Amino acid sequence: MDFIHSIPQGDRRALARMLTELENDTPSGRKALDELFLHTGKAHLVGLTGPSGCGKSTLVNALVHHLRIQQPDQSIAVIAVDPTSPFTGGALLGDRVRMRDLALDEGVFVRSMATRGALGGLARSTQAVSMALDAAGYNPILIETVGAGQDEVEIASLAHTTLVVEAPGLGDEVQASKAGIMEIADVLVVNKSDQPGADNLKQALEAVLEMGYANQVHESQGKQNSPAWIPPVLATVALDGSGVPELAGVIGEHEKWLKENGEWEKRERARLTAWVEKLFREAVWQRWQGERTNREVEQAIEQVMERKLSPYQAVKRLLKK
Amino acid sequence: MDFIHSIPQGDRRALARMLTELENDTPSGRKALDELFLHTGKAHLVGLTGPSGCGKSTLVNALVHHLRIQQPDQSIAVIAVDPTSPFTGGALLGDRVRMRDLALDEGVFVRSMATRGALGGLARSTQAVSMALDAAGYNPILIETVGAGQDEVEIASLAHTTLVVEAPGLGDEVQASKAGIMEIADVLVVNKSDQPGADNLKQALEAVLEMGYANQVHESQGKQNSPAWIPPVLATVALDGSGVPELAGVIGEHEKWLKENGEWEKRERARLTAWVEKLFREAVWQRWQGERTNREVEQAIEQVMERKLSPYQAVKRLLKK
Repeated sequence: MDFIHSIPQGDRRALARMLTELENDTPSGRKALDELFLHTGKAHLVGLTGPSGCGKSTLVNALVHHLRIQQPDQSIAVIAVDPTSPFTGGALLGDRVRMRDLALDEGVFVRSMATRGALGGLARSTQAVSMALDAAGYNPILIETVGAGQDEVEIASLAHTTLVVEAPGLGDEVQASKAGIMEIADVLVVNKSDQPGADNLKQALEAVLEMGYANQVHESQGKQNSPAWIPPVLATVALDGSGVPELAGVIGEHEKWLKENGEWEKRERARLTAWVEKLFREAVWQRWQGERTNREVEQAIEQVMERKLSPYQAVKRLLKK
Repeated sequence: MDFIHSIPQGDRRALARMLTELENDTPSGRKALDELFLHTGKAHLVGLTGPSGCGKSTLVNALVHHLRIQQPDQSIAVIAVDPTSPFTGGALLGDRVRMRDLALDEGVFVRSMATRGALGGLARSTQAVSMALDAAGYNPILIETVGAGQDEVEIASLAHTTLVVEAPGLGDEVQASKAGIMEIADVLVVNKSDQPGADNLKQALEAVLEMGYANQVHESQGKQNSPAWIPPVLATVALDGSGVPELAGVIGEHEKWLKENGEWEKRERARLTAWVEKLFREAVWQRWQGERTNREVEQAIEQVMERKLSPYQAVKRLLKK
């Protein structure tokens, strides 16, 4: 993988090739990241999540355009994580097409990744891919994922700054599942804010936040001296760019807040710890799988099916080997 | 845990006590299940999933009432899995209150369980709890979970029959994330079918299903001789019971289909295999965690933070111990 040495110098083809290796989790991809890891730790990782139909892709597009005009020397990367479903492949691809004009800009790198499970779950290699983009000098790196349960928690553990995007007209927005999302939002965005119901949605989100933060502030009273970050609720119309400069401003402020209050390092540590833990679990599991034979497992399952062993007893037997 | 011997005889207090042990994953809970596991394998596990607001709890209520009148000698259990969120605890509790009248029926056992993560994920002990209810003679066992990403996949791997419940007016229903849910549905239910938009929703669901099954039939052509199960789309109004007898009928037909075509055993095997695998992974992980010291892990993370080791290299070092 000699080509990787040109990645920090901006070789897009070398980068694309390496990302493919990382997506397939090949030994050479891992080796390349071992070398490039030294160059990571600079990029601001910004996660965007929200229900389909809220206009995330359009918002990412508008945000990138704005940032490129503001800081023309700064390259930006976008990772778009798509749920893989035989039923919807087409529709989501269509969504991505809207990002196509970004691809004409040499200072923007867009990577689409499929989640390889049936439903939800960030693509397994998102961590590795974002590190490679970091090493290649892209900053910020925007990571977009459809809001479906588990994803948001993962995006929050991956990103420094998490944006939760909502839009009016998508149904009963402030619901149980959504309320959980609030807990991970650093910034809330009401997109399509020119449409009916936007003001109500914004107020509802603010009310939920207020409720939640009233509890939290109560809980952490006197525990820390640094100023708390209260997630702001912003209104945007991604299609015409309204509110996008303000959003970019808030993202920058959050980065500043993270760095000035020790939160940046805290989140870096949490992210890298989670990654190491995950890789370690996988490695331990693989090693064990190599040591037990399929026959032993099949026999244990057969005895569970016949109710001769309970699942707990089956595991004990497998562990004894 | 001598009291467990009265569980197969219908001792509700002993059962409730055992479920608490299982929820806390205590050694005595595991031991009790080892003994009771012999009595399992009879119950039809029916999973219900769908977005909040679709009326799942009301539908479960109506379904249980109907089944109890049809087969008064047959006890029924309901497991209601709630997402735990500091913001919504109250609202969801309110939802559960609607099930309260079921609690007056001695032939019905209702158990509420919290998912112990921030978002999504079936309660860890749902498998064990449903086995205990099975051993206690409840049949069917209805397992209700809010539709939020990962949950549905888990419910499908746990249940013999999976119902996906939708309702008009909850937004753009046939979306990417929803389309994935179709893949796990054995039966689709349009609840609140007296409300505007119900017919459109039903047609949209049928169209998505048709598309999906056209692909699947194409793929599996000639691979099997047993008749395929085409998920039907049913309309219900849980509040007044419309469509509920038909739904109960379809659930019974699905059970019959499963048993006549070898699918019941296949799903049992898949479910128990997944459970054993999960327990085994946990056990292996715990054993390893005992063998490495926190200090070693901290040192490895520190070197990753300082970019002296990549995450892959850190894992290699931890594995060498």
